[in-house]
Amino acid sequence: MTAPHDDLLRAFARYEDALMGGDVEVLDELFEDSSETVRSDGGATLVGHGHISAFRAGRPAAPRRWLERVHVQDVSSDVHRNPVVTVMVAESVRPDGSTGVQTQVWRRAEGRWTVMTAHVSSAPPAPAPSLPADADLGAVWRVAPADLEHGTSAAGRADVPSVARGLPLAGVGIAVKDLFAVAGQRTGAGNPAWLAQAEVETVDAAALTSFLTAGAHVEGVAHTDELAFSLAGTNVHHGTPPNAAAPGRITGGSTSGPAAAVAAGLADLALGTDTAGSVRVPASYCGLYGLRTTHDAVSRAGLVGLAPSFDTVGVLTRGGPLLASAVETLLPEQDVTTVDRLVVVPALLELAEPDVRLAVEAALLALSVRTGIPVETAGEVGPGALESWFAAFRTLQQAEAWETHGAFVQAHPGAFEPAVEERFLAGSAVTETDVARAQATITQARTTLARLLPHGTVLALPSTSSVAPRTDAGPAEIDLTRAATLRLTCLASLGGLPALSVPTPRVGSLPVGLCLVAAPGQDRTLVDLATGGTL
Amino acid sequence: MTAPHDDLLRAFARYEDALMGGDVEVLDELFEDSSETVRSDGGATLVGHGHISAFRAGRPAAPRRWLERVHVQDVSSDVHRNPVVTVMVAESVRPDGSTGVQTQVWRRAEGRWTVMTAHVSSAPPAPAPSLPADADLGAVWRVAPADLEHGTSAAGRADVPSVARGLPLAGVGIAVKDLFAVAGQRTGAGNPAWLAQAEVETVDAAALTSFLTAGAHVEGVAHTDELAFSLAGTNVHHGTPPNAAAPGRITGGSTSGPAAAVAAGLADLALGTDTAGSVRVPASYCGLYGLRTTHDAVSRAGLVGLAPSFDTVGVLTRGGPLLASAVETLLPEQDVTTVDRLVVVPALLELAEPDVRLAVEAALLALSVRTGIPVETAGEVGPGALESWFAAFRTLQQAEAWETHGAFVQAHPGAFEPAVEERFLAGSAVTETDVARAQATITQARTTLARLLPHGTVLALPSTSSVAPRTDAGPAEIDLTRAATLRLTCLASLGGLPALSVPTPRVGSLPVGLCLVAAPGQDRTLVDLATGGTL
Repeated sequence: MTAPHDDLLRAFARYEDALMGGDVEVLDELFEDSSETVRSDGGATLVGHGHISAFRAGRPAAPRRWLERVHVQDVSSDVHRNPVVTVMVAESVRPDGSTGVQTQVWRRAEGRWTVMTAHVSSAPPAPAPSLPADADLGAVWRVAPADLEHGTSAAGRADVPSVARGLPLAGVGIAVKDLFAVAGQRTGAGNPAWLAQAEVETVDAAALTSFLTAGAHVEGVAHTDELAFSLAGTNVHHGTPPNAAAPGRITGGSTSGPAAAVAAGLADLALGTDTAGSVRVPASYCGLYGLRTTHDAVSRAGLVGLAPSFDTVGVLTRGGPLLASAVETLLPEQDVTTVDRLVVVPALLELAEPDVRLAVEAALLALSVRTGIPVETAGEVGPGALESWFAAFRTLQQAEAWETHGAFVQAHPGAFEPAVEERFLAGSAVTETDVARAQATITQARTTLARLLPHGTVLALPSTSSVAPRTDAGPAEIDLTRAATLRLTCLASLGGLPALSVPTPRVGSLPVGLCLVAAPGQDRTLVDLATGGTL
Repeated sequence: MTAPHDDLLRAFARYEDALMGGDVEVLDELFEDSSETVRSDGGATLVGHGHISAFRAGRPAAPRRWLERVHVQDVSSDVHRNPVVTVMVAESVRPDGSTGVQTQVWRRAEGRWTVMTAHVSSAPPAPAPSLPADADLGAVWRVAPADLEHGTSAAGRADVPSVARGLPLAGVGIAVKDLFAVAGQRTGAGNPAWLAQAEVETVDAAALTSFLTAGAHVEGVAHTDELAFSLAGTNVHHGTPPNAAAPGRITGGSTSGPAAAVAAGLADLALGTDTAGSVRVPASYCGLYGLRTTHDAVSRAGLVGLAPSFDTVGVLTRGGPLLASAVETLLPEQDVTTVDRLVVVPALLELAEPDVRLAVEAALLALSVRTGIPVETAGEVGPGALESWFAAFRTLQQAEAWETHGAFVQAHPGAFEPAVEERFLAGSAVTETDVARAQATITQARTTLARLLPHGTVLALPSTSSVAPRTDAGPAEIDLTRAATLRLTCLASLGGLPALSVPTPRVGSLPVGLCLVAAPGQDRTLVDLATGGTL
């Protein structure tokens, strides 16, 4: 990670505070006291500290802004390799949704960092992502909103005037992953053979019940990858849900349909599951917030599982406030606690493609500046450990998946996409010894993770190794991406840890997620850290 | 002058060409080939050469833009003091009047300059300067437009439907300095005693006739400093004309009223005179184009003169195209010739306040990049020469002013502002020996200037040493400003040279002029150089 001096970051944070607080004296102090100091916006360029100071004194404090990304480029360094000139490019959003960028050239002299060049500009809010009129909504919904309206139970619930009752999720429409029981509907689990044998549910899944009780309604039942045993978001039976945030690219999976619906504005909240990354991957690819909850913290009753040691309930939203409400609804007993340390692990950052890594680092720096929490590097986990952890995770996941669904897969030969079927069959070959060894490794991993993540510490890593692959990407590219991404995502899965993918970074025009991981039970703390104070 | 390497300026000019030509290959070459290269606008930040390249390839060439100012900040240099990293901030205008700023951090490696950080933004056209509703127009007009409408000859001419006849100045309203004969009006010369004895003119001044024949009309007769013997723009009898471009500040003079009228949009074209800077100073203070013509190139018939060795006709406009038309009308026999060298003289740059100097250098760099003409430093004229030249100029100006108006001044004691009267009286004390010595110095100066300015060379200098002083500035401040400014302006006056003040630089929010001087007869060449290709 490009590590600017802490004192530069402190100066930068001080500048942000002074700007929004209208503290002209501090702003003057942070601009180089030179007749050549430059400050530009689109309309005017001021040259000279005195003119810049006079301009500031004549205007009110800047509107509040929310730092999303901070990019750092070291320009020159001294003989001790300490930066002397550093460019900082900060991207922010404002309360009205407009975006801002400030580019600042900072120079260090006599131990003090000051700005020699500044350029600030803004743009109106970007239009929300949406799907073309001819998009294949059949690839999104297994039970579309229109069909629900004419159904019985779910539609009946949507008619309850929850808004009027002031419930926290009043008016919120949920895209339910087709693994959760929805009363009055069968569960499809992404596979026609499964749907064919499924019976109509009489009771909503526990997590869904929480949301409905809080005033939300079912917008539709959305497709999943087959039995949730994929991260791709493709489904040979139902098609590939379109990614409104990254046209021409996959949504990722297995919570593919719900993520597609939320990204396109067809639903507000996705109710999904995350075993190996099935919430975090589509969150990253679709530019959404996506929380994998602490293992066993949210009831999995009414859910078609895959690997019970790792299966969790998760949610996806477009914005921070709804995420916070949804997570509070799911986990009402949790408190928000203080975070005082952000850590990065080089071996994890290196799993991401170079531009994804830069984007994630930019988002992390923004988080650090916003919250005042320093970023530290933790070297305890190396590539070798990650490799063995992933192998152990895969062994246990495959074994449990076979235990869960082996009988069904065997009874329906040819009913699955070959790659999915192959993954299940691999589980049939796992021996008890393999499992025991994997369990031992996982126990070690959990110990290491517990040491890495004491109370108050949050681990930051890329949610995925890449942006969303193209829908026409070949199997080799998909496999490569999947392999690197799994080494990132399996960490929280192994530890049973809550993990939040935050949608701020962008690689080119494509979204990618910054993932925040904490100790078990810190779900709401993570959400508060990433979204607290959202404009 | 901050002198970036020529190769950097060439790279910058190449970038501008490629941007407007949509040459993605060259743009790619000029951006640092790194995953950390940053390109921002208000809406998005792209990180990485590949993403920037993909973005460029997907959009058309940039709209044409006209560079107005280029600011250069050297950030770091190598052991030979050659810059290694340099920030360039370029301000431009676009065809629709909107403005743009681009900040680029350029880095040199292996002899090649490339951009490591770029930020571009734009803003809607700024509203044109205007006067508050309660502004004192009595300080602008000696004969206001309303009074002309009810008059006879001038108003009669305004009714001629010149637009319909396709004349080059059709529809153009002139603010005529109250030194030019306007048929049907008396000439006031900025002094009530003068006006009281003046007879109604029967023939328009020659320069005015040229404009009227080309289709323009008299908008009004505007105030001058008393007998044009001041640069301040104040007039004890008529008040201080308001400066719409710099509220609360003087317009400068002596073409004060006409400049005020054009700056505020009350007239299109100012017809003025320039002996020691009386067109260039108000142009600089009011953000206007102002041309002092080659001595004797434009007839002074019908003009109340001051010092015939230096008196010239001049014009002021807000925009380049009208300036070009007006000058072509005045000097139809002149050709536009090629300029291949821009020179600066350090001793002249040093006469300006530091921030004025920076602004002028920024405008000159923009001119150089726009035209591809290099800037060279010429050291032939030092501060000592400037001082002796100015003394000689003042001696001859005062002697001639006394010769021209001494009798009137003596006959009207107390009719003038004391400072103006004092200047006239100083002329009475100039001896023939003083004049002869001054003439000898002036001859030397002309030789030096002719050597400095061969055909094809243009001298660039600050139009004034400062921005417009406040209307409440004390006499000491005014005198200081006047003294430094006169040492700049007297150069063209001494040489009988054409001099164009170009309004692009800004100091804080205030205008100031870049002055371009060439050999006699190069008036239209100067105008074409500064405004050719104006959007």
